[in-house]
Amino acid sequence: MLEGLVMNDYPLTIQHILDRMRRQSGDAQVISLRPDGTKTRARYRDCAERIDRLCGGLAALGVKEGDRVGTFAWNSQEHLETYFAVPCMGAVLHTINLRLFPEQIAYIINHAADRVIFVDDSLVPALEAVVEDLTTVEHFVLIGDGSAGTLPNVVRYEDLLTGNEPFVYPAIDERQAAGLCYTSGTTGNPKGVLYSHRSNVLHSLAECLHDSLDIRAGDRVLPVVPMFHANAWGLPYACGLVGASLVMPGRFLQPEPIARLIEEERVTIAGAVPTIWMDLLAYADEHKPDFSSLRVVPCGGAAVPLTLMQGFEERHGVTMVQCWGMTEMSPLGSCAREPAGVVGPERWDYRATAGKLAPLVDARIIDDSGAELPWDGVSPGELQVRGPWVASRYYESPSEDHLDGSWLRTGDVAAITADGYVKITDRAKDVIKSGGEWISSVDLENEIMAHPDVLEAAVICMPDDRWTERPLACVVRRPGTNTTPADLREHLLPRVAKFWVPESFAFIDGVPKTSVGKFDKKALRARLDDGTLTVSVAGPATT
Amino acid sequence: MLEGLVMNDYPLTIQHILDRMRRQSGDAQVISLRPDGTKTRARYRDCAERIDRLCGGLAALGVKEGDRVGTFAWNSQEHLETYFAVPCMGAVLHTINLRLFPEQIAYIINHAADRVIFVDDSLVPALEAVVEDLTTVEHFVLIGDGSAGTLPNVVRYEDLLTGNEPFVYPAIDERQAAGLCYTSGTTGNPKGVLYSHRSNVLHSLAECLHDSLDIRAGDRVLPVVPMFHANAWGLPYACGLVGASLVMPGRFLQPEPIARLIEEERVTIAGAVPTIWMDLLAYADEHKPDFSSLRVVPCGGAAVPLTLMQGFEERHGVTMVQCWGMTEMSPLGSCAREPAGVVGPERWDYRATAGKLAPLVDARIIDDSGAELPWDGVSPGELQVRGPWVASRYYESPSEDHLDGSWLRTGDVAAITADGYVKITDRAKDVIKSGGEWISSVDLENEIMAHPDVLEAAVICMPDDRWTERPLACVVRRPGTNTTPADLREHLLPRVAKFWVPESFAFIDGVPKTSVGKFDKKALRARLDDGTLTVSVAGPATT
Repeated sequence: MLEGLVMNDYPLTIQHILDRMRRQSGDAQVISLRPDGTKTRARYRDCAERIDRLCGGLAALGVKEGDRVGTFAWNSQEHLETYFAVPCMGAVLHTINLRLFPEQIAYIINHAADRVIFVDDSLVPALEAVVEDLTTVEHFVLIGDGSAGTLPNVVRYEDLLTGNEPFVYPAIDERQAAGLCYTSGTTGNPKGVLYSHRSNVLHSLAECLHDSLDIRAGDRVLPVVPMFHANAWGLPYACGLVGASLVMPGRFLQPEPIARLIEEERVTIAGAVPTIWMDLLAYADEHKPDFSSLRVVPCGGAAVPLTLMQGFEERHGVTMVQCWGMTEMSPLGSCAREPAGVVGPERWDYRATAGKLAPLVDARIIDDSGAELPWDGVSPGELQVRGPWVASRYYESPSEDHLDGSWLRTGDVAAITADGYVKITDRAKDVIKSGGEWISSVDLENEIMAHPDVLEAAVICMPDDRWTERPLACVVRRPGTNTTPADLREHLLPRVAKFWVPESFAFIDGVPKTSVGKFDKKALRARLDDGTLTVSVAGPATT
Repeated sequence: MLEGLVMNDYPLTIQHILDRMRRQSGDAQVISLRPDGTKTRARYRDCAERIDRLCGGLAALGVKEGDRVGTFAWNSQEHLETYFAVPCMGAVLHTINLRLFPEQIAYIINHAADRVIFVDDSLVPALEAVVEDLTTVEHFVLIGDGSAGTLPNVVRYEDLLTGNEPFVYPAIDERQAAGLCYTSGTTGNPKGVLYSHRSNVLHSLAECLHDSLDIRAGDRVLPVVPMFHANAWGLPYACGLVGASLVMPGRFLQPEPIARLIEEERVTIAGAVPTIWMDLLAYADEHKPDFSSLRVVPCGGAAVPLTLMQGFEERHGVTMVQCWGMTEMSPLGSCAREPAGVVGPERWDYRATAGKLAPLVDARIIDDSGAELPWDGVSPGELQVRGPWVASRYYESPSEDHLDGSWLRTGDVAAITADGYVKITDRAKDVIKSGGEWISSVDLENEIMAHPDVLEAAVICMPDDRWTERPLACVVRRPGTNTTPADLREHLLPRVAKFWVPESFAFIDGVPKTSVGKFDKKALRARLDDGTLTVSVAGPATT
């Protein structure tokens, strides 16, 4: 091997991103919506100087390279500062999902062995509830002017920034750990995904490409997605790399404050899960906010209903791009843009998919026998992925459940088209096989949600004597409407294969959601099993 | 150190780019303008299959990992195929600058120890002229249907693709060498820059970003810049990564065929050095071709005259972006786009600079004493850079001339503004220091070329008894005009500092150019020294 050693052995680290924020994009800003409804603004050059001092403060607390430092906080300037200070000093940023159950919160803090935890004052009670169970935490750092309650060993954030020696950044190897995020697995204990400096930098580059999220200098990016959820999709690092400003919503994830932030801050890119956008669409239909500044609205974390994308585009002129990924993928896997030159209704055929794989992400489709399937758009199997920002295993976990060699088993069932569009038909545990034929619950949900009287729909599998399995449509009706199973079947018949049309419907008040806003079909299946779901049967199955 | 080992140890290699061309962008095309004026088209999926067979053919010739394989060719589909086959089989692609002097061509082939050379049939005579001096070449591969002349051991390109065993690609380490390009240094022997797989992949990602060249799926990219010049600015690899089509002009670099290619192929991005664009602008002003498909025209390799950018934008609606780089930088260093929100004439203040550094490129300004200067926009010194696609040393060369630790000494004199815009004032060897004050030859040339009667202008330094050095303006007048030194001084007086205005002018027929199209000031200085430059003196120096 002839090594290309004449090229500089320059490491890919978050320190470089911090340096760009300081020197290349010093005038870009982080804008934070505060609990009292006011907004604060800080320039990146000033944040960088505060980050230097924060590193000094953490070093004074005894934090060393490799130590884990937790955050229990909404999206804010201070949270952004920890995103850079902790990895740039060589420690590991553990973003704690504050929507987990208390036992899970205690579990992941102990599993990560966090030595310090940053906590928003508004979130102190949630930590107080578990503090007795924490075995490794030595200090809490309180963000905000509120009370620390009964938490021990508390230092206020701003105090941590004062009176320290000038901090000297260590040399960092690009494969060194930078961040830790636990998956909100619905079974067993959460599992940790340990990001490296290299994986974060490469993810940032790929995420900013036009065919990904198209982030550029001068953009004003609103991560509605929380910073405790897969690094807010990597947006803080991506924005730092290219010099885009960040608009931080704090705990205000409701339609009215989000719409107001978009209007007032002339947001150009805003990212959130579908449930947030569904609420915002309903709000926008009624209140007609000014969304003219928005250039791209990436949406992901769960399948994006076509009606949602069409509603934003047709009624509000907003281009929503469906993205697919996982915490295990940092999280970007793919983005759905139509090919150049495709216009008119045909573009929705592409936009409704999970899209094309980001550069540096490989994928393959594996059938039940372990064989690789062709990319023909119609052969579904388990989607497996690999790449420099895709996990190969979990942090301090013997579990190899999700691995097949170096490939990550995503648990999604998908086909890939000849031109590389990934079509996810189901989560592996959500698939419905009726009379030997697959029914895609995702596609079926999309078609049901296209009915004007339907707010949300989740399709789960129910046992069937004749067909082994049949779909059960759990439907949330729009207030004031009274759609019947017969209406919905009539709506579906021209839209999907006849054998897909459910005969069983359950009208529910809302689809239960997981801690990250995905449809919680496990909860629906539990209600079906324990008989608390009222099922209306419309007629016989296909004959 | 806590290693982020849970992330996949996925290497950054050109094999991944090839895989994307095959499976993600199979319908993208390479269009080649052939010597007979016809065009051929091939889809990336078909090129990929031909590349597989080309690897087999090279293996059959005995090419092994680490071996150097040369190309002596214009931009074409076949040249593109070698760009992928050679590095993907683990060998090293040496793109030979066919504009070098014969002795230099023989020198770099022997220095690289090329075992095989691909040659366009139209270029056979140039190789014949040096073939006796080549000590390592075992085979010539002839592209095209023409004659191989007296070259020995010739195999035709298409024959190399047939009858081989299916090729099995080796595993490649990302730091393995991928490509070799010699600088066209004006002094001493050319020096080799050895690119790695990693450097090429990272460069491709950064080059495609919006704030760089903004390359995306569906683009139609015309590299007028030759593939033997810094990998055609990395465009072939960048286009492969994101799925943009390539339009290859072959040897047709004149205004008429380039304009026709842009029109006929609806080119969206076209890259070339300023001299090419100056000729094209004159052509376009006269013939008014349809340039409406062009979205970005990157221009670099030499300082870009402001009048050139303004002419394309104001008269033809084409956005030209000045880029700066070097062969030693793969070559992208920076791109000049105005900040978001800057409109009107003020934007030219930004567009006229070398622009902002690409992500992952670090820079510093060093004064004569070795001290680092502040980024204040007015403190010029030597520009030094480093980054993962910046060379740390030359291939098989003891020369450390260009290095200061891990930093590459660019030989450019520049200042950097507080917001990160690089303003290159001169090549280190071109600087003019008059009465203790710097005069920027680049800025002065720009202002002289803004005169309507001036086609080109190159400013060099001439000795002066009173001021030590004074600028000498070498001016090419537009045909039919007869501008005088007094006219030019009157034109300059309101535009630059009074002491910048030259009193000495030389009216010449054309500015001599280097092999890569840059102003050859060394040649002008030689003419000044040997008295063959007729200098008109307009009046006394500033008083």
